[in-house]
Amino acid sequence: MLTTNPFDRTDDDKLHEECGVFGVFGHKDAASLTALGLHALQHRGQEAAGIVSYDGKQFHSHKDMGHVGDIFGKPTIMEKIAGQAAIGHTRYATTGDTILRNVQPLFADFASGGFALAHNGNLTNAINLRRALVQRGSLFQSTSDTETIIHLMATTTGDSVIERLIAALHQVEGAYSLVAVFKDAVIGVRDPLGVRPLVLGKLGDAHILASETCALDIIGADLVRELDAGEMVVLSSEGVKTLKPFAVKERRFCIFEYIYFARPDSIMENRSVYDARKRIGAELARESHVPADVVVPVPDSGVPAALGYAEHSEIPFQFGIIRNHYVGRTFIEPTDQIRHLGVKLKHNANRAHLEGRRVILVDDSIVRGTTSTKIVEMVRSAGATEVHMRVAAPPTRHSCFYGVDTPERDELLAGRFDEKGMADFIGVDSLAFISIDGLYRAMGYDARDMKKPQFCDACFTGDYPTRLTDQDSSDRTSQLSLLDDGR
Amino acid sequence: MLTTNPFDRTDDDKLHEECGVFGVFGHKDAASLTALGLHALQHRGQEAAGIVSYDGKQFHSHKDMGHVGDIFGKPTIMEKIAGQAAIGHTRYATTGDTILRNVQPLFADFASGGFALAHNGNLTNAINLRRALVQRGSLFQSTSDTETIIHLMATTTGDSVIERLIAALHQVEGAYSLVAVFKDAVIGVRDPLGVRPLVLGKLGDAHILASETCALDIIGADLVRELDAGEMVVLSSEGVKTLKPFAVKERRFCIFEYIYFARPDSIMENRSVYDARKRIGAELARESHVPADVVVPVPDSGVPAALGYAEHSEIPFQFGIIRNHYVGRTFIEPTDQIRHLGVKLKHNANRAHLEGRRVILVDDSIVRGTTSTKIVEMVRSAGATEVHMRVAAPPTRHSCFYGVDTPERDELLAGRFDEKGMADFIGVDSLAFISIDGLYRAMGYDARDMKKPQFCDACFTGDYPTRLTDQDSSDRTSQLSLLDDGR
Amino acid sequence: MLTTNPFDRTDDDKLHEECGVFGVFGHKDAASLTALGLHALQHRGQEAAGIVSYDGKQFHSHKDMGHVGDIFGKPTIMEKIAGQAAIGHTRYATTGDTILRNVQPLFADFASGGFALAHNGNLTNAINLRRALVQRGSLFQSTSDTETIIHLMATTTGDSVIERLIAALHQVEGAYSLVAVFKDAVIGVRDPLGVRPLVLGKLGDAHILASETCALDIIGADLVRELDAGEMVVLSSEGVKTLKPFAVKERRFCIFEYIYFARPDSIMENRSVYDARKRIGAELARESHVPADVVVPVPDSGVPAALGYAEHSEIPFQFGIIRNHYVGRTFIEPTDQIRHLGVKLKHNANRAHLEGRRVILVDDSIVRGTTSTKIVEMVRSAGATEVHMRVAAPPTRHSCFYGVDTPERDELLAGRFDEKGMADFIGVDSLAFISIDGLYRAMGYDARDMKKPQFCDACFTGDYPTRLTDQDSSDRTSQLSLLDDGR
Amino acid sequence: MLTTNPFDRTDDDKLHEECGVFGVFGHKDAASLTALGLHALQHRGQEAAGIVSYDGKQFHSHKDMGHVGDIFGKPTIMEKIAGQAAIGHTRYATTGDTILRNVQPLFADFASGGFALAHNGNLTNAINLRRALVQRGSLFQSTSDTETIIHLMATTTGDSVIERLIAALHQVEGAYSLVAVFKDAVIGVRDPLGVRPLVLGKLGDAHILASETCALDIIGADLVRELDAGEMVVLSSEGVKTLKPFAVKERRFCIFEYIYFARPDSIMENRSVYDARKRIGAELARESHVPADVVVPVPDSGVPAALGYAEHSEIPFQFGIIRNHYVGRTFIEPTDQIRHLGVKLKHNANRAHLEGRRVILVDDSIVRGTTSTKIVEMVRSAGATEVHMRVAAPPTRHSCFYGVDTPERDELLAGRFDEKGMADFIGVDSLAFISIDGLYRAMGYDARDMKKPQFCDACFTGDYPTRLTDQDSSDRTSQLSLLDDGR
Repeated sequence: MLTTNPFDRTDDDKLHEECGVFGVFGHKDAASLTALGLHALQHRGQEAAGIVSYDGKQFHSHKDMGHVGDIFGKPTIMEKIAGQAAIGHTRYATTGDTILRNVQPLFADFASGGFALAHNGNLTNAINLRRALVQRGSLFQSTSDTETIIHLMATTTGDSVIERLIAALHQVEGAYSLVAVFKDAVIGVRDPLGVRPLVLGKLGDAHILASETCALDIIGADLVRELDAGEMVVLSSEGVKTLKPFAVKERRFCIFEYIYFARPDSIMENRSVYDARKRIGAELARESHVPADVVVPVPDSGVPAALGYAEHSEIPFQFGIIRNHYVGRTFIEPTDQIRHLGVKLKHNANRAHLEGRRVILVDDSIVRGTTSTKIVEMVRSAGATEVHMRVAAPPTRHSCFYGVDTPERDELLAGRFDEKGMADFIGVDSLAFISIDGLYRAMGYDARDMKKPQFCDACFTGDYPTRLTDQDSSDRTSQLSLLDDGR
Repeated sequence: MLTTNPFDRTDDDKLHEECGVFGVFGHKDAASLTALGLHALQHRGQEAAGIVSYDGKQFHSHKDMGHVGDIFGKPTIMEKIAGQAAIGHTRYATTGDTILRNVQPLFADFASGGFALAHNGNLTNAINLRRALVQRGSLFQSTSDTETIIHLMATTTGDSVIERLIAALHQVEGAYSLVAVFKDAVIGVRDPLGVRPLVLGKLGDAHILASETCALDIIGADLVRELDAGEMVVLSSEGVKTLKPFAVKERRFCIFEYIYFARPDSIMENRSVYDARKRIGAELARESHVPADVVVPVPDSGVPAALGYAEHSEIPFQFGIIRNHYVGRTFIEPTDQIRHLGVKLKHNANRAHLEGRRVILVDDSIVRGTTSTKIVEMVRSAGATEVHMRVAAPPTRHSCFYGVDTPERDELLAGRFDEKGMADFIGVDSLAFISIDGLYRAMGYDARDMKKPQFCDACFTGDYPTRLTDQDSSDRTSQLSLLDDGR
Repeated sequence: MLTTNPFDRTDDDKLHEECGVFGVFGHKDAASLTALGLHALQHRGQEAAGIVSYDGKQFHSHKDMGHVGDIFGKPTIMEKIAGQAAIGHTRYATTGDTILRNVQPLFADFASGGFALAHNGNLTNAINLRRALVQRGSLFQSTSDTETIIHLMATTTGDSVIERLIAALHQVEGAYSLVAVFKDAVIGVRDPLGVRPLVLGKLGDAHILASETCALDIIGADLVRELDAGEMVVLSSEGVKTLKPFAVKERRFCIFEYIYFARPDSIMENRSVYDARKRIGAELARESHVPADVVVPVPDSGVPAALGYAEHSEIPFQFGIIRNHYVGRTFIEPTDQIRHLGVKLKHNANRAHLEGRRVILVDDSIVRGTTSTKIVEMVRSAGATEVHMRVAAPPTRHSCFYGVDTPERDELLAGRFDEKGMADFIGVDSLAFISIDGLYRAMGYDARDMKKPQFCDACFTGDYPTRLTDQDSSDRTSQLSLLDDGR
Repeated sequence: MLTTNPFDRTDDDKLHEECGVFGVFGHKDAASLTALGLHALQHRGQEAAGIVSYDGKQFHSHKDMGHVGDIFGKPTIMEKIAGQAAIGHTRYATTGDTILRNVQPLFADFASGGFALAHNGNLTNAINLRRALVQRGSLFQSTSDTETIIHLMATTTGDSVIERLIAALHQVEGAYSLVAVFKDAVIGVRDPLGVRPLVLGKLGDAHILASETCALDIIGADLVRELDAGEMVVLSSEGVKTLKPFAVKERRFCIFEYIYFARPDSIMENRSVYDARKRIGAELARESHVPADVVVPVPDSGVPAALGYAEHSEIPFQFGIIRNHYVGRTFIEPTDQIRHLGVKLKHNANRAHLEGRRVILVDDSIVRGTTSTKIVEMVRSAGATEVHMRVAAPPTRHSCFYGVDTPERDELLAGRFDEKGMADFIGVDSLAFISIDGLYRAMGYDARDMKKPQFCDACFTGDYPTRLTDQDSSDRTSQLSLLDDGR
């Protein structure tokens, strides 16, 4: 049974980061550390998880649907995935392709031996590459773009696994933070733009790779540094070796990691995510203040921005909405009559702090607006005299092709309405989003550099930092023709 | 797979409320409403839940171990428990007796027909009564004190079910909020001291009984009123009838409901629980202030008191500790080496707000002190220069016999040490608990009335409002001699 | 997943014995021996099984739905049900009441200690007794007539458990072979008519009770003797003690045990069941021979009688019908089109021995005739020129009230038609049943003693050896008013 | 929960056929028919099963470990595998590789579309081929030799799927009966020697492929004919097309199919398997008769040969050993003490027909001899005065490389001892195997043709009809380097 997370990631009305990755080299409990690391990265993908380890002779694998704690909770399973090297992956998946074949790490038996790969991000030319590979005789087992990298490696000439991986990556476009394991080493790679995060840590003599620093904290490992954009690190018995196989490009880290994806206790590019969110809240207060009695976060993801807003505006911060953390994935299908009651499985109004008050609601972002509408209605029913919504992100207007599941444009609230229309739709007295420049100010810049933007902000601006090869092709289908039952 | 709740109730280091109850009469989706109500009461008991409904001809029952959403998540199950009347129960259970036979509501087939009963609280003379009933030929199926009430009813003369219930309750001592269903009605009863909560609500023509108002909110029902201490209400096709079968006593509501048990969005005795907690925090600041840079709650249960403390002391409030809400009941059994790492499955330090700061940690209560010790150590590791612990409850020194699972006295931190010893044990620079009178002040009184205390506060004072008959008997065992496998 | 048994007992078109019982005193692997014994008795009840053991201090229980091998297959379970004394039960159950509460052994906590009881048979005045007990304050947990015995014991005065059991049994009517365990002993009892079987065995110093000798064989135990009708044996540390608490009556053992219920390798009343079946086949050949080319059993239960028929008639015996033993309880629900194909999940014709032959089909008994109809059609399709059905039992015309699940009279083939009508219904060229006297001859008697019949043959003759108190009462319902979900 | 089959195939002491295959083209319930067909072929592989269907647009697949009835018992599953074309596979697997990835049919996405393949048999040069394919960039997902065929197809040039399949098969050596489905057709192929069986049937307008005729019978389909050795049939909307892509070779059908693998109600090469077994029994009586009182089969697989023996020798046939068909895969792990009892989970002596008798035991074959030893001991304990074992197969001395799981030579009884030594090992007064020529006589030949043997009998003679390329290579390992958890 899956449950919600405190920072709201399973909401249907949020964007979903698609993956978290983790790797260890040189620790005899490599798989256990990986399971703990994946647990700390659970918010990056809650549908499935997997670990592949190497024990010096053989690879071991365990993958399943569900939460990390459930999948790796049995000692008998952990004993099996033995070895001093391991990589892991936790994954969000859209309904259609939640099948075990797609769960990572993916494994391949090359002529030179076994190789396992886990991927956070998304390739933008995978379908084109796949078509050519199939033509040549490659048989794909999954619908995952990650498998494309593996087949490219299998069919590329190159003496070593590392050479083959580099050769394969030279052919792909898009965003990727990868961890891989083979008999000699654990590898980490970040794409040339550094869109997705990847950090290097250290625990005694062991080296660690992880999507976020919170996955180092859980096992008491120290942060060594972030990988550079375009960097490959090789963790082996010879220590850590750095390769820079790609031409230097401008760094374009995903700014939405700060807004919502990352855990607030993670550090990214030397910034505290929690503080970045508070600064966004303060910027919001600066840009679009309105007189009110109380600042109320939409829990849990709106909390830091609301604190920042409240501190800057000097309006009291209150938990005017209480969240029930027991909400699971499934619950009784309500009858029509019950549906009519507007059952509040997840949130309840804390009437004492809403009744008769002018309320500023702070949320991290708005995607479709459906949840916002319900929350505003609940706040009004509890007696709020005014409701003002302040959003810690600019309007989300464009799809992400770098590993985030975005609704179609016509489902996006900002794709359907202008700001006035959005305010009417969700039923607030006023609505304001942080400006793009305000967002960049909260990150410590004067403004967005229009020529060389400091971040990937394509979901707000439509300014994509890579080619969208598959997107531009006429035929975008690459589905397996086999539908199986999810096993 | 069970997960933690936001207000920290599954911690081994908190007291556990043992139950929540809910009842509906007069709604065609009675069981669905009950499942939703139990979901809102999940924090009062997370190990098992059950519903019994009556469809005009037959009773239907479904009970299981686990969370409400999992137990009642299948439409096929909800279809079975049909009818316009239903009662439900959610339960915390100590390890030894987590068996399905003990899961409530308990059902009995009287000569006059079926009867189901759900109980929040604990009887203090159940063992003595049970011994006499067994002698007479009654066969007990569970180890639950609640079954005693049912056997008393079965063996009591009395024309109606209600008369038999009153006759049975006249023989019992202790705390109880009961809901029951039989062919004519749904009944709610509160013991003469009103130790445990029970409220009456209304949803259209239907009437509702629930442990807390948050269970009314989830289905959009209105609060009618709390039941009086010693009141019995009968919900039937003739509406709501009130009986007062017991001699009038002073009300002694459990003050710990305000401190920790109840959900913050519930209203108890016309007090917002959230506000009560904030006022306790403010009292704490008044009583035992210390200069500091930041007020940090131990999440999630310490949050409202910390807000109150911060507001009153004008020291900034920050989420200096981040909680991982994915923590489940089971996780990999760590190896010794990993255990040594001090893995932080549940909490992580938000270093940016701890490093170099003087920190005031606010927690709702301290039971054994084990979690506090770990949290203080984590806060210090993150660079705090001083750590001061402020606790929103007086020291917990005595066992509760009214439906709360309390450790043995020698496991209670306050049972082992004086205040100085406690501070040393958990490793803080200073430690302060709210005073008993400070606690009563937060409830709106000048002080505790030593002659007629306004609340049951026995866990702090040892002043028990009822006889402890079983406790005083030499032989306290009433275990079934049968150990079965939990089914 | 349950599967069929070789002697056809899960067929919808057979009578079903309702139970098998087993008990051990004085062996340190008492529960394991009991599980093995129940496995050998699986044909007597395939829906559920349970074991209660006593370890000198505490009772242990494990019960579940399903086959013995599945229920008791895990070492962790067997470790729990520790002790040198144990009893077990395996059970057939009609759909409506397959709930875990009904699974035996039933357990009760008397004032004098724990007591568990398992029952093969059926009481004919249980409903009347139950009504009186409920009136007096007894609360029933199951719909089982066996619970009546336990409540009678609880409410009877008597110093010892044995005295209470005897006092209770003096009040009941019907058929019962019981095994029970309490702290001092394991008890076995057979009703005064000895309708149901029960044997005493020995394994080293341990004593054993079992429904059939095949359950002694599986553990290598020796048969000591059958219990007499009306005998109670007490297995304790003092050895085996015999009591004869009931007035002497004529023995009336169930003759259908020989025809179908018992396993062919069991010995009953010093008769080999296999041989008894062969003798019935020989009698059939004597009584109703017809010229033919081949004798074909309806597998598996018709095999011994067919062998006897073939030997006596000197017509070749062939497996003209092959049975697929993989048939499980559930299989794909066929579409109408597939249903039309007359899918043969269970049987297939062995065409080589049917085509062009005059076939004598031998079956053990006919209940509704539905399976017979299909089999005859299959045999004809395979090319048989004549089909003659010979049945090793007289026509089944009356319900059994002694622990066998019988269809209503108007569902019985012999209740709907005369012999000619039956032959037409199942589509044979000739049909013959063994005569009552032929059946008694096969048992070694000259004929049925009309005044003092040597067996209970009420299903054939309607001559019931006990009163049918409940049957004669106007109100026969004793259902629990609670329908639960089978757990 | 899996159970034993009547013809003894799950015994550890029998050879195991490794697969059954089935295919349908042109029926709207194709998958349901396939499930029924696989159910009838369950004896050819009980560990796992799978079906792939094609609905005109998409392929659907369902596979799992377990029995056919369990895997395909849910309507929701059958609805998913829609379409008028389907193939299925049921499989025996050695412990090490019981992983879901290996369960057939295997599926591949070729450039030309989807293709699924199911295989009965074994390739003798798969490892050599695999090595070359991996070198070239093919990534294998399973340890199955069947995947080699698919990769050969993917990397072969050829316009159509059929051309590619033929090109692939020209490269492989060994035994195979294949069924395949792609968008245009269902295909059946038998290897050039016809080692494994494959028949063509008809049900209305639909065409069927099946390993044995019993799988036609279960759905009421008619047998059209066996496929020729080396024949390929293509079932499509244009009817049945026959191809003969291979050079003509002598037919070498596996003679062990007659002895044990096939179901007795199947017809192979126009022979009734049941009759073939009876004739073997008669030959045995002719070759090695001994005076005795009773002929007793080792159930269930020895029954037809025993009948043949009894008829020919005119010694009475009796079921002297009764088999308990409830034996499941798992049962309680016995303690040493219980193990000592020689628990008979599976068989029980029918003492009435063994005591004081000279017994001829008839079994179909002896592999390791372990079960035989136990059975002989049981028969002697039951009082047999002499025990003579007669075996319906010659001594099994050589491994099979054509799809049958054979123990290592030094585990084979006939590999360890001469005939006298074998008799001593299993404890019989005399032991005789049928001679090779006797076996061929039972098949209707005068004797084995030493130059062109009429059957593959390599397990008896060591005369292998194909090259054993992998066997002759120095390095025979082709294991995946990945061990996963069986999912």
